[in-house]
Amino acid sequence: MASNRGGHKGRSRRHARAAGPAMLFDLDGTLVDAVYEHVLAWHQALQQKKIALPCWRIHRQIGLSGKSFLPMLFREIGIERNPTEIEELEELHLEIYMSRIERVRLLPGARELLAHLSEIGIPWAIGSSGEPKAVEPILKLLGVPDSAPVILAKQIERGKPNPDVFVKAAEKLKVSPSDAVVVGDSVWDLLAAQRAKALGVGLLCGGYGQAELEAAGAYRIYSDPGDLLNHLEELGVRETD
Amino acid sequence: MASNRGGHKGRSRRHARAAGPAMLFDLDGTLVDAVYEHVLAWHQALQQKKIALPCWRIHRQIGLSGKSFLPMLFREIGIERNPTEIEELEELHLEIYMSRIERVRLLPGARELLAHLSEIGIPWAIGSSGEPKAVEPILKLLGVPDSAPVILAKQIERGKPNPDVFVKAAEKLKVSPSDAVVVGDSVWDLLAAQRAKALGVGLLCGGYGQAELEAAGAYRIYSDPGDLLNHLEELGVRETD
Repeated sequence: MASNRGGHKGRSRRHARAAGPAMLFDLDGTLVDAVYEHVLAWHQALQQKKIALPCWRIHRQIGLSGKSFLPMLFREIGIERNPTEIEELEELHLEIYMSRIERVRLLPGARELLAHLSEIGIPWAIGSSGEPKAVEPILKLLGVPDSAPVILAKQIERGKPNPDVFVKAAEKLKVSPSDAVVVGDSVWDLLAAQRAKALGVGLLCGGYGQAELEAAGAYRIYSDPGDLLNHLEELGVRETD
Repeated sequence: MASNRGGHKGRSRRHARAAGPAMLFDLDGTLVDAVYEHVLAWHQALQQKKIALPCWRIHRQIGLSGKSFLPMLFREIGIERNPTEIEELEELHLEIYMSRIERVRLLPGARELLAHLSEIGIPWAIGSSGEPKAVEPILKLLGVPDSAPVILAKQIERGKPNPDVFVKAAEKLKVSPSDAVVVGDSVWDLLAAQRAKALGVGLLCGGYGQAELEAAGAYRIYSDPGDLLNHLEELGVRETD
């Protein structure tokens, strides 16, 4: 399918090679339990700037960049902030989040899922709206080699729910997005998947309800990466010998 | 309907009296933006005891007591803890939560909703699984008078999703639960409402998805207390003159 297999060229002695679609993963809320820390970091950053926004509204916007979601939420509560103030809020959020990042843990099965895909030769990549500084320690936790294709918001023009991050990730794997599966925890991932003509798979571990993910077009829904790993055949991943 | 009107005997000069069902409110996630702080306080308490539970699973259990939900989650991940250890975890959670309580804010419209119900003479009460120590500062924020009927988990035998807290709250208002509306943000509130034969109304501001609340029997769903306040007529609250 592709010569570039996302830095996971090792073949297991235990596992056969497999046929199946390439997999494009979101990071925060999908592979790592970072959503709730992000929510409270945003909440605290906004409080410091005397802006009152309830946590659940922030939760539903995680996965979008602050630049995308803050103007929307501000419109809802009838306030305005200029681009400089938005950037200050983004910096403040990052600072608060980084001060807590040592409490962030991988989601169950995340490391094992990526390792297994590598072993059986299924190409995979990561596409995230995260800041490089926040993403780097998480990739270390995941045991992702430096050579693995990771596309961050900074490298693309338009963030989620635009399809760019996953289109670029598929490009890196030399596959068509329409032959790939996008795995994400937020409706923004699933909308980006639809726009990339990829199959969207939802994970509940970011805290969205099942029906919200279904309504955004999820083809299948799993609890977390470990649950997905146990049901890979449902996504057309089949060991070939 | 009742002689005891939940500590809100004042009549507004602006507002007419109203007819309508008594209202029984959950507190955390319904009137006050405390759910996400609770989630991370539990997460941190569990981490300190070397127990790994993802935030989303904790989120879906908020509203139950630790004594109720911890054994379930532990069973899911295949560990056991004795009642003393569960109590220690509850104390640790409370300690961490209290250290952050100054960041907890009322949800939009919460104070105004209670004040308006008092003004128009609709009886209301609060029923919460919270600890007295954690609830007290929130009631102050809400401007709830000491005379207002507030039923806490400590005062009843069986916590939510058992109906006891709302049955007792209705008793205090001298109304039948089946003539009352239970307003809550969690499926546990709505299940308790069903078991109390009360009408359940869901609020999205605790972070559940709309479909989750509908599936648990919500008769109507609003974003937050302010949204409910704007649609009181939908619940049969009608100003009479």
